[in-house]
Amino acid sequence: MTQTYQAQIYVTLRSSVLDPAGTAVQSGLKHLGYENVAQIRIGKYIELTLDAANEEVAREQIDRICDQLLANPVIENYRFDLQVSPKPMNISA
Amino acid sequence: MTQTYQAQIYVTLRSSVLDPAGTAVQSGLKHLGYENVAQIRIGKYIELTLDAANEEVAREQIDRICDQLLANPVIENYRFDLQVSPKPMNISA
Repeated sequence: MTQTYQAQIYVTLRSSVLDPAGTAVQSGLKHLGYENVAQIRIGKYIELTLDAANEEVAREQIDRICDQLLANPVIENYRFDLQVSPKPMNISA
Repeated sequence: MTQTYQAQIYVTLRSSVLDPAGTAVQSGLKHLGYENVAQIRIGKYIELTLDAANEEVAREQIDRICDQLLANPVIENYRFDLQVSPKPMNISA
């Protein structure tokens, strides 16, 4: 029997990699008057629902999915949180 | 005297809005053999450092920044976590 798991995946640029989008947003904020924003880095946030036999299998699979498709390991890091999903009721407005 | 705060901002599409990028990734995962991924939604994850007099001021300002620049309130929701930053030592590889 499989469980449904829900993962929140955070993909961020390595700090040694320049973030032109973040710099553009920071300069936009300066123009809007927010002079006190010191740094801004933009990454991806991915919510993923999957079925797996147990938590270990789910974690292993998400690691592979991140390496293969969601993150570019050369320039990006990722991390994720995982919970057992309270069934497909997790659709909020 | 001001404090330095660090915010993690999550911008997600409202569930009533289609996510073509998420659907594309899900179909890519199917082709890679991950048939057990039921749903995938892609959003933005933003790390922001700012100086503010206190937490209330910081939260208010981040709310305005999200509404004005980071999220499109018509199709996106946002939420954020906020901590006092342990000074500019928060640069990890």
